[in-house]
Amino acid sequence: MNDKLREKLIDIEPYVPGDQPKGEGIIKLNTNESPYPPSPRVAEALKNINPSELKLYPDFVCTELKTVLGENYGVNTNEVFLGNGSDEVLALCFKAFFNSDEPILFPDITYSFYSVWAELFKIPYKRVPLKDDFTLDVEGFLNKNGGIVIPNPNAPTGIYEPKSGIEKIIRGNKDSIVIIDEAYVDFSEEGSIAELVHKYDNLVVVQTYSKSRNLAGIRFGYAFANPELIGVLEGVKNSFNSYTINTVTKTLALESGKDRGYFEMCVENIKSTKAYLITNLKELGFTVCPSSSNFVFATKADTDCKALFEYLRSKNIYVRRFDAPKISNYLRITVGTDREIYALTEAISDFLNK
Amino acid sequence: MNDKLREKLIDIEPYVPGDQPKGEGIIKLNTNESPYPPSPRVAEALKNINPSELKLYPDFVCTELKTVLGENYGVNTNEVFLGNGSDEVLALCFKAFFNSDEPILFPDITYSFYSVWAELFKIPYKRVPLKDDFTLDVEGFLNKNGGIVIPNPNAPTGIYEPKSGIEKIIRGNKDSIVIIDEAYVDFSEEGSIAELVHKYDNLVVVQTYSKSRNLAGIRFGYAFANPELIGVLEGVKNSFNSYTINTVTKTLALESGKDRGYFEMCVENIKSTKAYLITNLKELGFTVCPSSSNFVFATKADTDCKALFEYLRSKNIYVRRFDAPKISNYLRITVGTDREIYALTEAISDFLNK
Repeated sequence: MNDKLREKLIDIEPYVPGDQPKGEGIIKLNTNESPYPPSPRVAEALKNINPSELKLYPDFVCTELKTVLGENYGVNTNEVFLGNGSDEVLALCFKAFFNSDEPILFPDITYSFYSVWAELFKIPYKRVPLKDDFTLDVEGFLNKNGGIVIPNPNAPTGIYEPKSGIEKIIRGNKDSIVIIDEAYVDFSEEGSIAELVHKYDNLVVVQTYSKSRNLAGIRFGYAFANPELIGVLEGVKNSFNSYTINTVTKTLALESGKDRGYFEMCVENIKSTKAYLITNLKELGFTVCPSSSNFVFATKADTDCKALFEYLRSKNIYVRRFDAPKISNYLRITVGTDREIYALTEAISDFLNK
Repeated sequence: MNDKLREKLIDIEPYVPGDQPKGEGIIKLNTNESPYPPSPRVAEALKNINPSELKLYPDFVCTELKTVLGENYGVNTNEVFLGNGSDEVLALCFKAFFNSDEPILFPDITYSFYSVWAELFKIPYKRVPLKDDFTLDVEGFLNKNGGIVIPNPNAPTGIYEPKSGIEKIIRGNKDSIVIIDEAYVDFSEEGSIAELVHKYDNLVVVQTYSKSRNLAGIRFGYAFANPELIGVLEGVKNSFNSYTINTVTKTLALESGKDRGYFEMCVENIKSTKAYLITNLKELGFTVCPSSSNFVFATKADTDCKALFEYLRSKNIYVRRFDAPKISNYLRITVGTDREIYALTEAISDFLNK
């Protein structure tokens, strides 16, 4: 390849997703999936899809699906935007809403895709340090900016910022779009702030079916915002890829959304297994961040957690760690089944007693 | 919404896809879908998907799928890139390969999404006029440029540029990436130029399962190029959305790719129905472009084809037309089933005899 050709190619540092090992005997606690299958209504709907329907382009309006999502969170049908996973929704939001010379703001310890999207779209950005206990520095988000994105609960800490703090940030930034990334919100006590989209015209709330809805495999995410912002997002989507949601995803997401009982049961199961995991970790001497999500973020001061990470991997137990400053000795552990958490606890114990 | 907030929002003119009417009695000949259901192997695979698998993120390597696609077109596994429909693949290609101050080039009459992607990513562009008979002006693509994108067969004309002409453009542009968008190539006589990716390091070939594979509803497209360009594309994808292909799409695309016999039968059926459609249109006095695709592009000099378009719509027959100069009196008609084409012919005849 010659130099003139090469200089026309983009030069970027992509996001690195967690490993997706497949196979027998693997305990996968590294990418915050649910350990439970999707709702039986989803399984039923999958069986009933007419293959012949797949010859046609999908319905790209999806009114019924938007209505169900809205009903679940107190939002109107015209305040809902759909995407191919919440990563796509967030990427399109960055393109749609962050068009300013001022830097956008996000926490210094947070979802590592935010800086990647900013680089991709050449959006200036600034990291606002978390406090020493990893909680959000609300005041730090009241400075001049080109936009704000905050996950609540935060990742990879799992810490939830109370609604009052988030609302203070939204209210204090009337000239910027504030995106609240609620990927894990269903596991929190206070829950979603979705209804605030009626109150604030600068708020965008993003959610996903990959965690609490047990459907990472269908790629489905969505955003809530006032109809004007939704219109801008639709414009960006229709300038990128008109049909992002396929027929199967649409059908299955609809059935999942309708099954409130199964959803709530899975969330409660995960919460109680999480309590068990936290108890075990504390007994083994770990410090654990208060978690409002389906994972915990933990460290042990006198232990090389990177070595522990590698030891677990050698035992076919996958958890996640990050090389970033301040958190390089932490592990992020997804809440699996009781049996998986028991096996994890045993393996950690073996490592510590070596 | 205040002005300071509004000025941070993107300002764009999105692509307008064709209507997607659903319902009994509609004859849908407007978005170039196949009139045939996907392969029976696809139907079988859909039934056999284990719903529990959907709780996990998809496999984002998809080696087997890439191998099958490569085998079908004489390309290696590491020369294949996968996306959520060929529109997504093309959008990511624009971002990956068109980074120059020189304008990119595409035909003046062509797929209308190209200018939309260029606007979205702020890529300068220039339209190269087709010749009077709507064939490609090969010489016009030998001027200095920042990249080239050409559909072959072209849309909405359906005209195929022989391999020799396309190869001349690739060879004459060693310093630019040349994207050949082969959405309709399976309906052409000479077929794909995919194997040329071994010969030219500046060539990217894009294809889709939405037309000849009867699977518009699963959103699946892909690109062939040398491994270095594929690596750049993967980087852009992983800077946008790591999991663009979901578990269901991956599974069904694999089965479709393996069923060569059914695929060839559907393509042959469409070709013979197209011959019938062209004969009928010519008998009714239409001028029809030579079509190497699953649609025809036709006009009638003494007839208001916009009025005909609206008349057909009133009879629940959807075809497509464009307001662009030079083609505003043309209709683009997808090849449906024999029965649908018979009904269309009758309706056109009724309109002309009014």
